[in-house]
Amino acid sequence: MRIEIINTGSELLLGTTVNTHAPWMGIELFKLGLRVQRQTTVPDGEAINLAMSEAMERSDVVIVTGGLGPTSDDITREAAAEVLGVELITDEAALRSIEAFFAHRDREMAEDNKKQALNPVGGDILPNPNGTAPGIYTPPRMSGDRLCALFLLPGPPSEMRPMFENEVEPRLRSLARTHEDHHVQVLRFTGVGESDFHAKLDKELMAIADLEVGYCARTREVDLRLIGSKKSTEQASQLALSAFPGMCFSQNGESLEEIVVKLLDQQGKTISMAESCTGGLIAHRITNVPGASEVFTHGFVTYSNPAKQQLLGVSATTLEQHGAVSEAVAMQMAEGALAKAQADIAVSVTGIAGPGGGSEDKPVGTVWIGIATATSSKAIKKFIPYGREIFKQATSQDALNLVRRTLEESSNEAC
Amino acid sequence: MRIEIINTGSELLLGTTVNTHAPWMGIELFKLGLRVQRQTTVPDGEAINLAMSEAMERSDVVIVTGGLGPTSDDITREAAAEVLGVELITDEAALRSIEAFFAHRDREMAEDNKKQALNPVGGDILPNPNGTAPGIYTPPRMSGDRLCALFLLPGPPSEMRPMFENEVEPRLRSLARTHEDHHVQVLRFTGVGESDFHAKLDKELMAIADLEVGYCARTREVDLRLIGSKKSTEQASQLALSAFPGMCFSQNGESLEEIVVKLLDQQGKTISMAESCTGGLIAHRITNVPGASEVFTHGFVTYSNPAKQQLLGVSATTLEQHGAVSEAVAMQMAEGALAKAQADIAVSVTGIAGPGGGSEDKPVGTVWIGIATATSSKAIKKFIPYGREIFKQATSQDALNLVRRTLEESSNEAC
Repeated sequence: MRIEIINTGSELLLGTTVNTHAPWMGIELFKLGLRVQRQTTVPDGEAINLAMSEAMERSDVVIVTGGLGPTSDDITREAAAEVLGVELITDEAALRSIEAFFAHRDREMAEDNKKQALNPVGGDILPNPNGTAPGIYTPPRMSGDRLCALFLLPGPPSEMRPMFENEVEPRLRSLARTHEDHHVQVLRFTGVGESDFHAKLDKELMAIADLEVGYCARTREVDLRLIGSKKSTEQASQLALSAFPGMCFSQNGESLEEIVVKLLDQQGKTISMAESCTGGLIAHRITNVPGASEVFTHGFVTYSNPAKQQLLGVSATTLEQHGAVSEAVAMQMAEGALAKAQADIAVSVTGIAGPGGGSEDKPVGTVWIGIATATSSKAIKKFIPYGREIFKQATSQDALNLVRRTLEESSNEAC
Repeated sequence: MRIEIINTGSELLLGTTVNTHAPWMGIELFKLGLRVQRQTTVPDGEAINLAMSEAMERSDVVIVTGGLGPTSDDITREAAAEVLGVELITDEAALRSIEAFFAHRDREMAEDNKKQALNPVGGDILPNPNGTAPGIYTPPRMSGDRLCALFLLPGPPSEMRPMFENEVEPRLRSLARTHEDHHVQVLRFTGVGESDFHAKLDKELMAIADLEVGYCARTREVDLRLIGSKKSTEQASQLALSAFPGMCFSQNGESLEEIVVKLLDQQGKTISMAESCTGGLIAHRITNVPGASEVFTHGFVTYSNPAKQQLLGVSATTLEQHGAVSEAVAMQMAEGALAKAQADIAVSVTGIAGPGGGSEDKPVGTVWIGIATATSSKAIKKFIPYGREIFKQATSQDALNLVRRTLEESSNEAC
């Protein structure tokens, strides 16, 4: 079943409002086993006519949001009637319920609100208990050379969402008669690029029947999306997990920081961090997870050398001999944070974010990540020559991943 | 100039990723005095061809994001060549820079990455210093009965945004030949809501000739966008500044953290922060500004009571008597950070982010923000009962704004 969404609203194209309708509907429809084939945003006003007639010629179902209000730029109802080639007539029941909406709130009903009761001939009124604009459904009718059903829904999320759940979904279910065996899985990887998947895995994944594969690359992260039958998605996820052992940090879409907090919590451990070049981002990510206070007490942002000495006990000699961006300093920072916070694991970062501060030996993008536990400490070197914000994000990702792998190893050893 | 945006990516239609490209571009284009007439989202794969050819027949400029990666579902380049009716040929300079991108990072280049150097005949390669996929620009050529220019941009925001700013905007400026007396000013306010602008200022702004007004509301921030002649934008900005005295932190679009770092730098001062509920976000925001190391040395993330005592010298008795979320503790935290970091100004936050931890006296959302300098310290109370991430963002905004106002006052006193 081919579905298109049209969102109307000039504020969406100006960028002052983010379109949350489209992703919300995408998720709701996916639960029904349905997919959106195209989403279009048009400004308030006449652009809706063309967008609607084009979409109806291509689709089995078109869902339009917005433009059902009482003001002069709300013309979705009129546009639908024109595209369908029918008249608009006042629906008496709808008019009475708009009047009741105002009466119930002791508010005067404006004359303009009357047009909200207009309905294209042959349409069903969809009740709106949360606002004055009823929705409209017109059952499948010929449009170009195919049958297309049309839904018109109000723009405010608080009105659109309940109407979608109560009025749209049951109708879509019966229009679609979806089959049962429809699975989706999102595996999240770090330490491996999208091109690695392509080189190592694409052919094998392509060979699996009844499977759709998608990738989404973020900073230091690739999400692998598998859609298909239970059998095909399981087969594909096994392939991916064994192709990149240890690289998948989540099989259920959780973020890396959620996984780290979960592992710490399961193992009854606490974490601390000593951040130079990430400047607080690792602590920020950890404390974005509800319940972080169970596993995190002290964080250190040591941006200068004196701060590294005073707060973490890094030795002046080491700083002198090796420089702040070095293996030895990264290890001393992690060990210092571990001791000062009396934590079970500590991670440190020291590097050159840029744009200034680089040298030939240590160019911008050089970073050392240290990790310390009661039994061992080490540091690894990375080179992340991107802009300042990506550098910080990527470094925090590598640091959190080092924590994850260390926690997983210690849990394996304990078994 | 009629502009359309096409965003490709199945994840956008599935709802697993929110489309941030479209609003971001809407805002950027608006700054140039340009508007988006339609935005379309299509899945990865062949749907892009039809969407692109339709858009090009309707528009002067079409901007496409995504589908320039190395994998099999990345076919935007191929689709553009087909729609334009030209061949794809390898651009040798682009190929060398992709090879250099991998070499610089000590990574092997996959065979599949070569296709990223393909360019439709007549197209310009747009360099991508942040990734492997170069962009493509094809100058205006006949499409249907109009001339249309085409931009193909990579999907990851960290690659798309710099390319848009560096490569797309200058070309759009010259395509648009915007007239000389075209001024854009962005004033950024905090401590005042968008509805305050509507209530207090809309009528007066509307009365100014040759002026277009736009708002963009973010967490604890409203951007007022003025587009028009030099005279009309100046008149409007004077009105806004005097309507909300002290609330405007930037008249040139800088972020609050950039303003704070600039003020510190101008006054030759250093800052420290003691963060409980913001968990490192204030330090993260300060260190996002290049040159932060001149004004920032030590940051403290004291998430637990013992951390507040050990790192900042908060008294056990005060914690016992007033609780961690209190005026007295906020002040001691700020004073402790000031002393330990030997800074000139220190800010502290202690509050209840939720979802847990609230009580009748101190519900979720309660927060105290402290500020200390050599000569005085104080704390203010705020109530920010939103979700965890908005709570953190709003609290960091209020804390940075308190720093800004304190620095501005001290500079006025010094005059």
